[in-house]
Amino acid sequence: MGESESESAKKVEEEVGRVVEQAKELQDSASSFISKASFDNQSLRNRVVSLDSSIRRLRSLLSHNHHLLDPKLVDKAIIIILSLSFSLFACSFLFGSHSHSSSFFSLILICEQLEEDLQRARCIMVDGDAASFLPPKTQGGFLKMFLGPINVRASQKDVQLKVKEEYNSYRDRTALLFLLFPSVLLILRSWIWDGCLPAFPVQLYQAWLLFLYTGLALRENILRVNGSDIRPWWIYHHYCAMLMALVSLTWEIKGQPNCARKQRGVQLFLQWAMMQGVAMLLQNRYQRQRLYTRIALGKAKRMDVVWGETAGVDGQLWLLCPILFILQGFEAYVGLLLLKTAFIGVVSEWQVFFCGILLVLMAVGNFTNTVETLMAKSRFKAKMKRSKSKQEL
Amino acid sequence: MGESESESAKKVEEEVGRVVEQAKELQDSASSFISKASFDNQSLRNRVVSLDSSIRRLRSLLSHNHHLLDPKLVDKAIIIILSLSFSLFACSFLFGSHSHSSSFFSLILICEQLEEDLQRARCIMVDGDAASFLPPKTQGGFLKMFLGPINVRASQKDVQLKVKEEYNSYRDRTALLFLLFPSVLLILRSWIWDGCLPAFPVQLYQAWLLFLYTGLALRENILRVNGSDIRPWWIYHHYCAMLMALVSLTWEIKGQPNCARKQRGVQLFLQWAMMQGVAMLLQNRYQRQRLYTRIALGKAKRMDVVWGETAGVDGQLWLLCPILFILQGFEAYVGLLLLKTAFIGVVSEWQVFFCGILLVLMAVGNFTNTVETLMAKSRFKAKMKRSKSKQEL
Repeated sequence: MGESESESAKKVEEEVGRVVEQAKELQDSASSFISKASFDNQSLRNRVVSLDSSIRRLRSLLSHNHHLLDPKLVDKAIIIILSLSFSLFACSFLFGSHSHSSSFFSLILICEQLEEDLQRARCIMVDGDAASFLPPKTQGGFLKMFLGPINVRASQKDVQLKVKEEYNSYRDRTALLFLLFPSVLLILRSWIWDGCLPAFPVQLYQAWLLFLYTGLALRENILRVNGSDIRPWWIYHHYCAMLMALVSLTWEIKGQPNCARKQRGVQLFLQWAMMQGVAMLLQNRYQRQRLYTRIALGKAKRMDVVWGETAGVDGQLWLLCPILFILQGFEAYVGLLLLKTAFIGVVSEWQVFFCGILLVLMAVGNFTNTVETLMAKSRFKAKMKRSKSKQEL
Repeated sequence: MGESESESAKKVEEEVGRVVEQAKELQDSASSFISKASFDNQSLRNRVVSLDSSIRRLRSLLSHNHHLLDPKLVDKAIIIILSLSFSLFACSFLFGSHSHSSSFFSLILICEQLEEDLQRARCIMVDGDAASFLPPKTQGGFLKMFLGPINVRASQKDVQLKVKEEYNSYRDRTALLFLLFPSVLLILRSWIWDGCLPAFPVQLYQAWLLFLYTGLALRENILRVNGSDIRPWWIYHHYCAMLMALVSLTWEIKGQPNCARKQRGVQLFLQWAMMQGVAMLLQNRYQRQRLYTRIALGKAKRMDVVWGETAGVDGQLWLLCPILFILQGFEAYVGLLLLKTAFIGVVSEWQVFFCGILLVLMAVGNFTNTVETLMAKSRFKAKMKRSKSKQEL
């Protein structure tokens, strides 16, 4: 008995010694792993940076010698020849072709081929595993203000896609609430509250909006750091919306007398929010389908995605666009109405004036950016058509 | 001329080809690096987890056989012998000693030595480079709600320390504003505004508080994920403060008639905020000095830090504590006063009642947690004294 006790005691002592030893070993291998990984990481970073700069250099070289090949002109058959001769003159300057008549087309094709090669090299780098070694986009003041200097960049591509997917499902959930919350308020207003909204539910809604827009702005900034090409305006738009929610919280919800007239602005705002909910649902459907296309095409064909991602969802765009434009018009209308009430003096608080200006500003910005997006898409489509018809040629 | 042109064209073609080649190579080495690093990472993770579990097992084994060695008893000389004989009985059960008289002390020392060894092994693991491979703390709903599923854990120890340092300097900056903002409001109130605060500056202050507390709550959650041992209460406290700032934004700032009486709550709150600013500045000084001690001791002695980090700053604690307690008392007083005004019916809005309850709750929570922290510190000090005197023995 005493023997076995002393044996077990020895065992414990030995085990403790072993554990201490293991801890030291683990510390050593952890620190050597970290230093080696950070060294490899740095060397990959350097390679990516140098490759990126040589792609840029070659591209500017090609486009500089190729700038006369205006895409719009190329579409038109007659002007093609003119432009070709010009561009070939430029191209031949670079490639030193002396056969001024026979190899016009082949030279053009070489120029375009080289550009496509460069484009492919860039796609490999930006869309592949090497992308995590590209110098990070600066994180921006907004994230720094709320989170401090922590890095929010995911190093793995699939984590980045997961973040984007989660962002979309978050938008889906909020879009539903965006539709339900104001609808319920408006229905209760006419059924129960006798045409006059009480302050608390409206303030609850405004607080929810503030929280929602803050979350969206944070998430979108994170997406940007992770390589998303979201337009900066949509983030600024959410800053404006945050500010408006904050200001509207301090805005006294006027009751009797003459409630209906004083709450006209709130009522319009709620109606606009309902429409916004519908638009968000449609937008989400559209964005999701684009993302799914990207994922479904898989890693091997990830570069092709850049060329084909809009395929198959064009039909939805023709439903989405009119709704977006109507929404923006309505937004501007609500803003102008608020400004009117502020100037006429029905409600003379500064908040009314401020919200009016913000709404008009947001409507204008939204309109400009939607138009720009559509134009970029159509330019892109025209380019694709051209390159297809050339390939057939 | 033509020769050199065609040569340069060839050069460009070659260079483009090389770039495409390089992009492919880079993609390959990036993906192989990522997969190898994630494999090594996983194996280190497994080793850390298994070591952690064996440390836990051994510790519970030792403390189970050692539980009669009550720390409080050990301090007192007479009871020492009693406790020793008991604990030795327990210890000898483990170590199977048959010399029941001669090696009492040596056995105790072995038991304690083993515990210290385990503690050191744990410190190596938790404070060293291996720490980044410990299973992450779950990120909590708050971060998920605002940021989505992104990982905010820094893998390198020095980045974690930088995050903490930045958090402290953020607190420093905000502490100054915390002192200045309400002071200016109160001074302007009596000098210019004739004893009646206008709504806008107060609302601006409340909006700033909301922003500030949201930022603090986010940063503290991030610190927790990065291994900080911040007490959960202080984070909950900031959630409460966020809620209060939000509610107080919807709170109508009453003006004439009888402004002084109606704004009594706001005035008290501003005075409390000023005191809070002073306390925050002192707290920051204290926390900073602790952190600097940790950094100054360096990696080699990082384990010692756990034992010695409070050394040299005890003096400040005796200044800080009374101020903290006075502050908490004042907080509860303001809360009760708000509740009183709500019940008497001077200001009958629900916001007054709600803020009153929140303030009382926060005061009670702060008090409890400050006392618990102080008790933990004094227990720790007693333990250190004991182990020192034992070493001298």
